[in-house]
Amino acid sequence: MPSITRQKLDQAVSLMEESGIDVWLTFVRETSAGSDPVLPLLLEGSLTWQSALLVSRNGRKVAVVGNYDAPALEASGDWDEVRPYVNDIREALVGTLDSLCDSVAQPRIGVNFSPDDDKADGLTHGMYLLLQRYAQDTRFEGCFVSAAPLVRALRARKTEEEVARIQTAIAHTDSLFSQIARFASVGTSEAEVQRFVHSLIDERGWGFGWERAGNPIVNSGPDSMVGHGIPSEAIFVSPGHIFHVDLGVVVEGYSSDIQRCWYVPASGEDAAPEDVLRAFGAVTAAIEAGFRALRPGALGWEVDAAAREAIQDQGYPEYLHALGHQVGRLAHDGGTILGPRWERYGDTPFLPVEPGHVYTLELGVDVKGRGYLGLEEMVVVTESGAKWLTRRWPQIPLLGRW
Amino acid sequence: MPSITRQKLDQAVSLMEESGIDVWLTFVRETSAGSDPVLPLLLEGSLTWQSALLVSRNGRKVAVVGNYDAPALEASGDWDEVRPYVNDIREALVGTLDSLCDSVAQPRIGVNFSPDDDKADGLTHGMYLLLQRYAQDTRFEGCFVSAAPLVRALRARKTEEEVARIQTAIAHTDSLFSQIARFASVGTSEAEVQRFVHSLIDERGWGFGWERAGNPIVNSGPDSMVGHGIPSEAIFVSPGHIFHVDLGVVVEGYSSDIQRCWYVPASGEDAAPEDVLRAFGAVTAAIEAGFRALRPGALGWEVDAAAREAIQDQGYPEYLHALGHQVGRLAHDGGTILGPRWERYGDTPFLPVEPGHVYTLELGVDVKGRGYLGLEEMVVVTESGAKWLTRRWPQIPLLGRW
Repeated sequence: MPSITRQKLDQAVSLMEESGIDVWLTFVRETSAGSDPVLPLLLEGSLTWQSALLVSRNGRKVAVVGNYDAPALEASGDWDEVRPYVNDIREALVGTLDSLCDSVAQPRIGVNFSPDDDKADGLTHGMYLLLQRYAQDTRFEGCFVSAAPLVRALRARKTEEEVARIQTAIAHTDSLFSQIARFASVGTSEAEVQRFVHSLIDERGWGFGWERAGNPIVNSGPDSMVGHGIPSEAIFVSPGHIFHVDLGVVVEGYSSDIQRCWYVPASGEDAAPEDVLRAFGAVTAAIEAGFRALRPGALGWEVDAAAREAIQDQGYPEYLHALGHQVGRLAHDGGTILGPRWERYGDTPFLPVEPGHVYTLELGVDVKGRGYLGLEEMVVVTESGAKWLTRRWPQIPLLGRW
Repeated sequence: MPSITRQKLDQAVSLMEESGIDVWLTFVRETSAGSDPVLPLLLEGSLTWQSALLVSRNGRKVAVVGNYDAPALEASGDWDEVRPYVNDIREALVGTLDSLCDSVAQPRIGVNFSPDDDKADGLTHGMYLLLQRYAQDTRFEGCFVSAAPLVRALRARKTEEEVARIQTAIAHTDSLFSQIARFASVGTSEAEVQRFVHSLIDERGWGFGWERAGNPIVNSGPDSMVGHGIPSEAIFVSPGHIFHVDLGVVVEGYSSDIQRCWYVPASGEDAAPEDVLRAFGAVTAAIEAGFRALRPGALGWEVDAAAREAIQDQGYPEYLHALGHQVGRLAHDGGTILGPRWERYGDTPFLPVEPGHVYTLELGVDVKGRGYLGLEEMVVVTESGAKWLTRRWPQIPLLGRW
């Protein structure tokens, strides 16, 4: 079987026609210090000097890279041709474009920028200006267009192997949640829980779906900092409170993103109280309303609206974020957002749901005096509708009782 | 003492006048998936929604961020004002620009793009287009300029605390080299050496100056992949060969970047052979020639030329990279490069050396049949010239003999 990189490169070729692109050009430098988010689909490791990764409509894949980066790319076997350079990429880059666009009079060269989608927006403005400079006085002047349609489809339409890898990440995340439930008890601080999870992830050599300082997010009780905050050293698991964890782990290059919560019983309590049960039921029902609306052809905002309406119908305030986002190489994987038509989401809630997309479905409510009750599930879209990837929890468990 | 973030924010204010900027705007989103390289100077952690970090010439520091990111930024105490938003950043951003530019008719708003310097080029092209869209029909239309002069100076002119942190990273790297020399012996593979170093770095909770897959670089003998390659499972430390390691470790947020090499003696050999000694002497002498040329006011390419000439004068080919780069938050920290006037270095070899800059001085030669002999030292520039930060090796040591 071809490598997963080669599979995605071949998929890119198959997407060029519908994306209206003749050559797809990923143009990067010094990628180990922050890079185009599409790069993990194109190679393992990093590139140092200015590097151009090109895929043409006729299926040819060429990498133009600095001489020190060439051997690793050649060894990968994923590229038809690796062209090393020493002083100046311009000549090799323009020459490669020439050979790839041989028969096209006015080629459309897709490059990675998008005001709406950060995962299709890896080209820096300085590199964009450089490309303009290199194209000056060549026939490629004015030929650069956004590759967002291609990049979005490539990230979003998961191959079987990609879905399998995501399922592996989910299975390992499940096992981490079990360990968290055994580790945390009354008096454990939020920060201790995070350190415990970090030690497990490091031991196993896994990665983080988002920055480790806020991964997992750990919230205990009503005084916790909800959102993307850092777990506190001074907030402890306490009876009568909700204990909530949001965790995303990267295994074999693919991420999970799951939220779970527990009720911390006081001594003598052997069930969660009514307000907590009611909130859990409402959150679950709203997620299920989103799940039912999630079918090929639906627009992102329509799916969000189903869940948003459901939670409000049950007397809770609407959540101040999107119902769901795609998951893949990263926990936030770009493309169609299951979110409201707010300006900051750009065009992403207006994009359609397609088979092969993997989404989170997530929302929560504040339970007065008890804390944040949030759940996040993961699903894959098939021709006939959504399919759960996570093993759902039928009821909110009691921490420390199993 | 103010936090290191606050120190750098205050330094940014002091650089606005010479940089010709009225407001410095760092505009980012989803930073945990790759972000503007200047961000670690501005905050710990990450930002999720579109976020604007603004510093004005009159010293005011304002962060406009999504509501979930606000608490962590407020808790840092580094910002005069944190303005959270929910739906749309535009109004809060334009309002903040208005209040910061109150008295300036035609403000120059510096944003982070640079064709020449990737470390001053954190703004993506899509985010640049978004800014244009937000500024449309406001008085800020057409006011955006490159903040590269400011960002470069801010990164490059190290405070005392920054130099002290770099020295800490160097001291720990030295100790890693000692452990490597005890670990590696005839028959150890390159990949084993890398795994050993990774385990030490992970144990201590340190970071990597560049991507861990190629850090450290480990080269053993003439068949090794020199450059940015991945250490091999099938190449082993062997008698008569040179064993070479290039390592950069991040401690307390600052990096080292050092190369060391050893000769692997055959049984009966109690000194390195003549060809190895001669190469070590030539490399050392060339680095010292660069060191002597490294004084405030010198241009980057002049320093490189001194070393390049020295190595060629001794009968070796010139090296196909720059003599040195700046080191700071990252091993490759941008700004002035001590490099040749090659196109791919853009304007960076033409920039001056200044007090407070921290550089590597690095080069190597291939010794036929024995492998790559490279050294990389680190120095800080003072008013009166360069000062070694690394403890230099007077002679090439024999691996396994100490």
